[in-house]
Amino acid sequence: MPGKMLENVRATRPLVHNITNYVTVNDCANILLACGGSPIMADDANEVEEITAVCGGLNINIGTLNSRTIEAMLIAGRKANELGHPVVLDPVGAGASKLRTETALRIVREVKLAVIRGNISEIKTLAAGSGTTKGVDADTADAVTEETLERAVAFAKATAKSLGTVIAITGAIDIVTDGEKAYCIRNGHPMMSTITGTGCQLSALTAAYVTANPEHPLEAAAAAVCSMGLAGEIAFRRLTEEDGNSTYRNYIIDAIFRMTPEQLEAGAKYEIR
Amino acid sequence: MPGKMLENVRATRPLVHNITNYVTVNDCANILLACGGSPIMADDANEVEEITAVCGGLNINIGTLNSRTIEAMLIAGRKANELGHPVVLDPVGAGASKLRTETALRIVREVKLAVIRGNISEIKTLAAGSGTTKGVDADTADAVTEETLERAVAFAKATAKSLGTVIAITGAIDIVTDGEKAYCIRNGHPMMSTITGTGCQLSALTAAYVTANPEHPLEAAAAAVCSMGLAGEIAFRRLTEEDGNSTYRNYIIDAIFRMTPEQLEAGAKYEIR
Amino acid sequence: MPGKMLENVRATRPLVHNITNYVTVNDCANILLACGGSPIMADDANEVEEITAVCGGLNINIGTLNSRTIEAMLIAGRKANELGHPVVLDPVGAGASKLRTETALRIVREVKLAVIRGNISEIKTLAAGSGTTKGVDADTADAVTEETLERAVAFAKATAKSLGTVIAITGAIDIVTDGEKAYCIRNGHPMMSTITGTGCQLSALTAAYVTANPEHPLEAAAAAVCSMGLAGEIAFRRLTEEDGNSTYRNYIIDAIFRMTPEQLEAGAKYEIR
Repeated sequence: MPGKMLENVRATRPLVHNITNYVTVNDCANILLACGGSPIMADDANEVEEITAVCGGLNINIGTLNSRTIEAMLIAGRKANELGHPVVLDPVGAGASKLRTETALRIVREVKLAVIRGNISEIKTLAAGSGTTKGVDADTADAVTEETLERAVAFAKATAKSLGTVIAITGAIDIVTDGEKAYCIRNGHPMMSTITGTGCQLSALTAAYVTANPEHPLEAAAAAVCSMGLAGEIAFRRLTEEDGNSTYRNYIIDAIFRMTPEQLEAGAKYEIR
Repeated sequence: MPGKMLENVRATRPLVHNITNYVTVNDCANILLACGGSPIMADDANEVEEITAVCGGLNINIGTLNSRTIEAMLIAGRKANELGHPVVLDPVGAGASKLRTETALRIVREVKLAVIRGNISEIKTLAAGSGTTKGVDADTADAVTEETLERAVAFAKATAKSLGTVIAITGAIDIVTDGEKAYCIRNGHPMMSTITGTGCQLSALTAAYVTANPEHPLEAAAAAVCSMGLAGEIAFRRLTEEDGNSTYRNYIIDAIFRMTPEQLEAGAKYEIR
Repeated sequence: MPGKMLENVRATRPLVHNITNYVTVNDCANILLACGGSPIMADDANEVEEITAVCGGLNINIGTLNSRTIEAMLIAGRKANELGHPVVLDPVGAGASKLRTETALRIVREVKLAVIRGNISEIKTLAAGSGTTKGVDADTADAVTEETLERAVAFAKATAKSLGTVIAITGAIDIVTDGEKAYCIRNGHPMMSTITGTGCQLSALTAAYVTANPEHPLEAAAAAVCSMGLAGEIAFRRLTEEDGNSTYRNYIIDAIFRMTPEQLEAGAKYEIR
């Protein structure tokens, strides 16, 4: 099934509008091209409606947000809703500041989302309507491990139901759920956390996948998560003893570029709960 | 002749002021250093006149424009004109939104440009004073191919004449013309379109080339286009079966860094029409 | 001693708040992760106090500054002071425009700084309260060489004393001083100047080092400078004849990622004056 989702990305070449942070924006653009999609970045309130209209999907990422871009996010989100385009939200750092928490919560309230992709702390912040995270990384206390998985799945399902969207919580084990069915995904490599923006990149990928598979947001988001993790595994195997996180970043995007539907189908490691 | 143009870049190390988008800005800076130039990025209206004054050329790229940076583009452009510095415009996404189209047209009207570098859809938008493009990539219907080349050259020449600037239309075949003479360039590789910002990088390169060769804007722009395409060819030959667009991006900049005037002279594939 | 400083970075994983330019921000984030720290980027005045409060240190870089971010720099700087967090200033392009010079001088006046890291022209601008630089690179006339070293050390010490902070002047020979003691560092490679943002990256690294070694800002800053230079040497040795500045950039970050305290201790080349 993940292979089929990727096949549809390659076949339809979804154009994704991104309003995203300036830290990882280049990687987001390159990974969208790598998967077979096409990126456009635009964040001025005066043009986001038109830009969203020529695209098939919208990816909103609140890292390095500011009052100018927040307004653009809301305008673009409403326009995408009007046109029936899927919208992905990456609530980067929700819980770390009032501005981020409130912006994320406001987007959740005012925009119909197809997928929210974040770490467990960020999703907990959205679920609680408040919270604290250590910077943009997940609190260790929140980590999803084999021990806490059952509880985390229950939490993710309840949140997906209450927010009416697919929730993708990524970490050592990833959980993707629409409230009924949860994919528990064991792809990936710990070294991925030493690169800035693997989460941002995954959110962009997810937007491409859900845009190309509009009838299957849950399966599409799960496939995107599997593909990112699998790319992390493939890229890790290429590293020499001199390579570090910068080369690793390049190799992950390379692996997304080279990934075939067959490879993804065979390499995806998930169970459904 | 392209070799001589590069020689002058290496000899004079042109300092280029860039007002550009935040998606590909790092690549633009690194490719300017790679070719032998030197970049400075500054987009605040309160400093762009001074920054432009210490530079030799100006590169204006309207990707991720906003009201704050649009003002800075116009101020910097007028100052560069006053000082006789060459100005390159990259009308990223002109046609995709009113804001981009109107901004590009306003810059064309208010700033004397040495070169406009864009894809065929963007240049058509400028020529028509309006238009539509699919995001930031060229419409397939507009593609310059062997079949449409003659018509495209005529269009490019007419546009260059009417706008009073060198026009560089890049795609499968590139056309660079001052209205009288047109270089049709067949360097490059299709895989270049899988990297974000090869166009932006080329515009930055072009600014370095025209700054270093002020008497020969047509030949300088054509040489810059040849060098980018040749770098795409050289970089492609280095790729292994595991490499994708991220490594390709690095190798293209590397190839610009290593390129000698002799190599460019020998590798440039162009005819004059 | 430099090895011990790195050991403390790895042990404490300092979270560094960065308000920095959009040109090199991704590299700054990745090099912070590479050294063992953790980055968070946030530049909106409405959230920088909270973000700085969850971090251990603050890195202010004035490249691509604008009125919105200048305000955020000052707010964050004052908050960091209140909390006793070390603040690093990178006065990118001070001397190139009034806006940059005045902003840098204002930060120096209003924020207590642990370290100022810049090239000799930028530091001279701060010392003089005015000045000129050629773009963002140091004036050749200002270069620190064996011939001018003694004079430069005296200048650096006097500046450190009068500004009440550690001064790190980087170039062919680097000088790091608190006004009493000066480290003269001979690590690095000339090719580092062909990459955009090695200075910005070093400032981010320095912030991680001083955050992890709060009692030893001079030694921490000197260790950060040694580590960056050593990474430049290690990365240079990996380059093939086809590699250029883009691959070099990746390899430098990789070398920071792989660097052990023992390697830094053995490879650091400094004398104390």
